[in-house]
Amino acid sequence: MLSVEEATQRIVAAFKPLGSERVPLEDAIGRTMAAAARASADQPPFPSSAMDGYAVRSNDQGSRQIVGSAPAGHPFSGTLGANQAVRLFTGSQVPDGADAVLAQEDARVSGDMVEFHAEPFPGKFIRAKGLDFRAGQVLAAEGTRLSARDLALLAAGDFSHVEVRRRPVIALAATGDELSLPGRPRKPGGIVASSVYGLIPWIAQWGGLPRNLGILPDKSEAIAALAEEECDLLVTLGGASVGDHDLVRTALGAKGLALDFWKIAMRPGKPLIFGRLRDTPLLGLPGNPVSSLVCALLFLRPAIWAMLGREQKQMLRSAKLTGTLDANGERQDYLRAKSEWRDGVLWAKPLPAQDSSLLKDFSEADLLIMRRPRAAALQDGATVEILALE
Amino acid sequence: MLSVEEATQRIVAAFKPLGSERVPLEDAIGRTMAAAARASADQPPFPSSAMDGYAVRSNDQGSRQIVGSAPAGHPFSGTLGANQAVRLFTGSQVPDGADAVLAQEDARVSGDMVEFHAEPFPGKFIRAKGLDFRAGQVLAAEGTRLSARDLALLAAGDFSHVEVRRRPVIALAATGDELSLPGRPRKPGGIVASSVYGLIPWIAQWGGLPRNLGILPDKSEAIAALAEEECDLLVTLGGASVGDHDLVRTALGAKGLALDFWKIAMRPGKPLIFGRLRDTPLLGLPGNPVSSLVCALLFLRPAIWAMLGREQKQMLRSAKLTGTLDANGERQDYLRAKSEWRDGVLWAKPLPAQDSSLLKDFSEADLLIMRRPRAAALQDGATVEILALE
Repeated sequence: MLSVEEATQRIVAAFKPLGSERVPLEDAIGRTMAAAARASADQPPFPSSAMDGYAVRSNDQGSRQIVGSAPAGHPFSGTLGANQAVRLFTGSQVPDGADAVLAQEDARVSGDMVEFHAEPFPGKFIRAKGLDFRAGQVLAAEGTRLSARDLALLAAGDFSHVEVRRRPVIALAATGDELSLPGRPRKPGGIVASSVYGLIPWIAQWGGLPRNLGILPDKSEAIAALAEEECDLLVTLGGASVGDHDLVRTALGAKGLALDFWKIAMRPGKPLIFGRLRDTPLLGLPGNPVSSLVCALLFLRPAIWAMLGREQKQMLRSAKLTGTLDANGERQDYLRAKSEWRDGVLWAKPLPAQDSSLLKDFSEADLLIMRRPRAAALQDGATVEILALE
Repeated sequence: MLSVEEATQRIVAAFKPLGSERVPLEDAIGRTMAAAARASADQPPFPSSAMDGYAVRSNDQGSRQIVGSAPAGHPFSGTLGANQAVRLFTGSQVPDGADAVLAQEDARVSGDMVEFHAEPFPGKFIRAKGLDFRAGQVLAAEGTRLSARDLALLAAGDFSHVEVRRRPVIALAATGDELSLPGRPRKPGGIVASSVYGLIPWIAQWGGLPRNLGILPDKSEAIAALAEEECDLLVTLGGASVGDHDLVRTALGAKGLALDFWKIAMRPGKPLIFGRLRDTPLLGLPGNPVSSLVCALLFLRPAIWAMLGREQKQMLRSAKLTGTLDANGERQDYLRAKSEWRDGVLWAKPLPAQDSSLLKDFSEADLLIMRRPRAAALQDGATVEILALE
């Protein structure tokens, strides 16, 4: 059996970044930059006032004559002369000749003259040209997943469109004679297909484009037909009713499945297929709902990120253990747990039951505690490695 | 000037949960439950096998006769008799009469007989009926924001649809003669409108339905026309070019704006309008990009959550300070900072520059350090209150 780390490496190595497409900024949330976006100009593009007030020359003394008013977007056209002032507002362009701004609340106006009870100095209340960013600076690096704040920054940098990676199409098929759709008649000895309803939004959140192929019966022909599916990654769920994945392996083996591996030393999980079906990578997830979702987090997410050219960020962090844990066996274990904050320290408390069929517990957990194979028993307060669930 | 806490309370108190609508489960990600969803049946609906193996009676001894095979979805129709066994698979219904499952790897089959080198006990490798959840249990409480895992759980509970809160329509208008759209010709002394590109995805992430009204010029008629807008909350951005918000207040005042407050003791931010324009609540955010985004996080998000009937979760957590901080002034301060994990402890390092025009720094930050008015100076390692940015 393969270790989780080796399996992850082999999966990530099997993918290359996809091509790119140009999308409007307003559709770019969550998309991944295919190339660095560099600023074409300084921001602010001119020295700009940080206050409502008056542009002045810091060398002048005493009262100044008000020679104009320049709201933001209506710059003063002339050059400020000796003992002159121009009324400015937050964001106004500072006129040529001025080197300071004095605040409105420190000004006393009488006719067209203004006096100040504050002293200017060069640069006072002025946002220098390029203070936010300079022409040529990278605003969003290649591989960046665009956040709301990134989009605001790119807008400020005058980008109406960005070049992002194409979203990988992830085709998803659940297998199992026991499965029915929610709200539809249930079969004798049957259950409702559930994992797919969690996987589809996760795939979208991770940057993929999910395509739901529905539920396939445990019949070779139905499963073999998956070989015709055009997508960037084919994901199967289960096959458990005839032994974990046996049907998927045999039916697709006849269609040319080149198996890379199919067992991983982990819990929940273990039976996990990875291979290539003609030109299409195939990931076979276990049928148990919690197993399939945990395996998706560990193996499907990195695959999607590899196709997006995203950095495979270290998702593991550490926390302190609430309670105790026995020594671990041969398999890497992912315990469902709840987080708690105490004085800036993250504590993780494993849920009492860890069966891989327990979706209700899984929905209430917010992190996984990872235990390496043969990890020693742990006392309350020990440091554990964790993985966030959302 | 109002405190941040008082302003938040007054905003939240001004909203009631909106009505509800029924949506298919596959469209429910991120939506908010309008009523608790209770399981209509136990899950699993029958005792089910946790292993590939054989259903047996734990009181029997020695070898058993194999009387059938029952893959998941194909239950055994009879009752298990003395010294009988039925072949089962993970997820198979355990037949009547059986009270244990023995694993396939512990079985030796010869003809229709099977021997085991493992001992059964009542309940061994059986997932009891209702182990995951029982009929009547709440699978998603009212006010829950539905996660991918919640959707998987609701599917398992046979929900094809859920009753969720209608999404509040948030109409958003930027004001300012200095503003242009990204990629379009820029005005003299002008800048590109940026905040709205961050606010729109944030509003969607928080559960609202953003409606972009574009950029309005600094003209009373243009701003007054907002009074005709039908939405759940009207948000304006800026008005800075003629003094912060003066134009918004005066133009909408003539249309019946009932002002609740318009200044908050905070940085970045301060000028913030909240009131009611006829029947529509109005939130006027500052024009500076970082100020508007921070104020949206502090005041717009709770407003949306109030309309969704979500719990106003305490978003503040604590972290340890990297570096030192001077004593704070009269305004509550929100410093842009970067996080760092050391041994399960979260450290927060303030960025060196904190000007409210710095979008690039804001995009690189991942949290805000909150400093209360007149907070004392802090040393490295002191505990600080933080707010996550994504």
